[in-house]
Amino acid sequence: MKCVANDDLRVNPSILRSFCSEALKRLDMPAEDALLTAKVLVEADLRGIDSHGVARLSRYVSGIQQGMMRPNAIPRVVHETACTATIDADAGLGQPVSFMAMQLAMNKAREHSLGFVAVRNSNHFGIAGFYAMMALAEDMIGICTTNTEVLVVPTFARNALLGTNPLAIAVPAGKERPYVLDMSTSTVTRGKLEVYARLEKPTPLNWATDEKGVATDNPSHVLQNIIKRSGGGLLPLGGALEESGGHKGYGLALAVEIFSAVLPGALYANRVYPKDKDGKPLPSGIGHFFGALRVDAFRSKEDFKRDMDDLIQRLINTPKALGAERIYIPGEKEFEQAEQFAKEGVPLNDKVAKDLRAIAEQLGMHRPF
Amino acid sequence: MKCVANDDLRVNPSILRSFCSEALKRLDMPAEDALLTAKVLVEADLRGIDSHGVARLSRYVSGIQQGMMRPNAIPRVVHETACTATIDADAGLGQPVSFMAMQLAMNKAREHSLGFVAVRNSNHFGIAGFYAMMALAEDMIGICTTNTEVLVVPTFARNALLGTNPLAIAVPAGKERPYVLDMSTSTVTRGKLEVYARLEKPTPLNWATDEKGVATDNPSHVLQNIIKRSGGGLLPLGGALEESGGHKGYGLALAVEIFSAVLPGALYANRVYPKDKDGKPLPSGIGHFFGALRVDAFRSKEDFKRDMDDLIQRLINTPKALGAERIYIPGEKEFEQAEQFAKEGVPLNDKVAKDLRAIAEQLGMHRPF
Repeated sequence: MKCVANDDLRVNPSILRSFCSEALKRLDMPAEDALLTAKVLVEADLRGIDSHGVARLSRYVSGIQQGMMRPNAIPRVVHETACTATIDADAGLGQPVSFMAMQLAMNKAREHSLGFVAVRNSNHFGIAGFYAMMALAEDMIGICTTNTEVLVVPTFARNALLGTNPLAIAVPAGKERPYVLDMSTSTVTRGKLEVYARLEKPTPLNWATDEKGVATDNPSHVLQNIIKRSGGGLLPLGGALEESGGHKGYGLALAVEIFSAVLPGALYANRVYPKDKDGKPLPSGIGHFFGALRVDAFRSKEDFKRDMDDLIQRLINTPKALGAERIYIPGEKEFEQAEQFAKEGVPLNDKVAKDLRAIAEQLGMHRPF
Repeated sequence: MKCVANDDLRVNPSILRSFCSEALKRLDMPAEDALLTAKVLVEADLRGIDSHGVARLSRYVSGIQQGMMRPNAIPRVVHETACTATIDADAGLGQPVSFMAMQLAMNKAREHSLGFVAVRNSNHFGIAGFYAMMALAEDMIGICTTNTEVLVVPTFARNALLGTNPLAIAVPAGKERPYVLDMSTSTVTRGKLEVYARLEKPTPLNWATDEKGVATDNPSHVLQNIIKRSGGGLLPLGGALEESGGHKGYGLALAVEIFSAVLPGALYANRVYPKDKDGKPLPSGIGHFFGALRVDAFRSKEDFKRDMDDLIQRLINTPKALGAERIYIPGEKEFEQAEQFAKEGVPLNDKVAKDLRAIAEQLGMHRPF
């Protein structure tokens, strides 16, 4: 569960959606794309992944104003087979092209059992889980990956060279909630480091390395290094050492980089987020990967869902470790969080509320809250 | 690199292959299946993954003799679409059906860009990487997963309920060696725990839990608990805590369980490796999953390989962490190990050599070495 401060503002999700959508429309984004982008952002807040929620809007606004993200991009399919496609996103925001790509993957899967679509020349797309979960309504398994800005240090390297590279997988169940994995392939993301830095709390040693590539528990120092690009960064899942499986997290991050960026011909590793000769940001050039698999291409979907339910029940009903209260299925916490925030409103901290008010003022909108 | 003792016997890999193949033939396995199974076993030894090499032969021999593995099984396709299939392995050894399944996935990918095949009612198949790597020769990306005997404790659980559930991904490159990830989704496998137990060395705390579900550094105690089924077991990649990402490793292990077992209708979680009412082992009932993706279904394979080479070179040439000598690409260590052992012979420790000699005697074969 997300840590919510008592004095956090609570905002009705539909008001947040309208606000984000209106702001993007005022920046020349077509209405349908603006609404979709707003929906993906607010879904992140609802699910408790606030680093990828409306807090991102100010970066999208400046990205559009700086010419890094094209609000009226026209993505097009540049390579296609019956089961696959590659889409050039035309340097637009990541959400509209990702929705289109996942729909295309599902169309292909509907007809041919499997559909895989890769996207290049894109930008930040919000939460990977949103697109993977689109498959659930049609009894398909959904897969989604993306490469990201460079923050993660490969095993035995000194500098970051890969992104936090999330991987999302959504699998339908019967009576139980679906399985929805949506994880970065690093131990933690930058946001977690920022929380510890604010609290002046040392981090576990498997989170990050310093400028020499040595594991450190000092989050402020790591964040300064990231900003100054002076070396070090986040560690892959498993930490710095092979002994604790860090090479596996690095291997997974690299797999995500290959599927999301090398396969569609996007920018990869430290080629992402380029700048022009005056230091002005160019389109990020990142890529995404989407997959849809019809469950009934392998066995009857009724049998599949019955076994999913049974597997889930075996897991949640197994005896708990000493001191543990509950065993979760991936996605379960986020579904419960979303139900709670849909009722109580999405919490916005002071900084985000202030950012959104500044956007309203800048774009001549009514002050939202 | 594998740790090789000075007094380890060194055996030519082709002699090992002939030996394993001959033993399996004497147990009624058709010649072609026996040779393939032997090839997969010796490939594991060559790549330094000796826990999955010829050391397994004695378990296969007893598995066949106990009726748990059918040497002359006839796998058949029970569900099929243009791009997908489900195969019932007829309780045979895992290797022949897995080779057949990966070939079928590749045939489908050749024609339709993608091919995914799931297998049920199977047994141990050796190393997942063997099948994923089959795709490389045809410029496809290969994927392979399997569920396994239950050894891994879900996050916050007291008892093991999932397997070490390996995931293998093989991606072709140009001038560089291919990327070959072949990893269990646990921090370590049981074999590593056994090595530490023999050396009476405490393990890191993210390897295993005791019978209360609490992280422990005592490998002998964990192994005793595993044998007595008294609780605890191996930890998922990331360890026991969410703080160190253990829930991500658990989520990945569960994904592998779903693809390998729920999708084909195999046994899953603690249903695997059942016994009859007298305690006699029945077929393990585990399942596997195989995928093949044509690279040129997304972009030209020449462009793809050029970018793979560039990505690999960026990684291996980046500055090293303090004290580190080299940055590896997944699979690189194993390729180098295989080249070395092909020249010098595969090292067999005393116990394995003794086991193989016992098999030779039991089956009336010439003493091999």
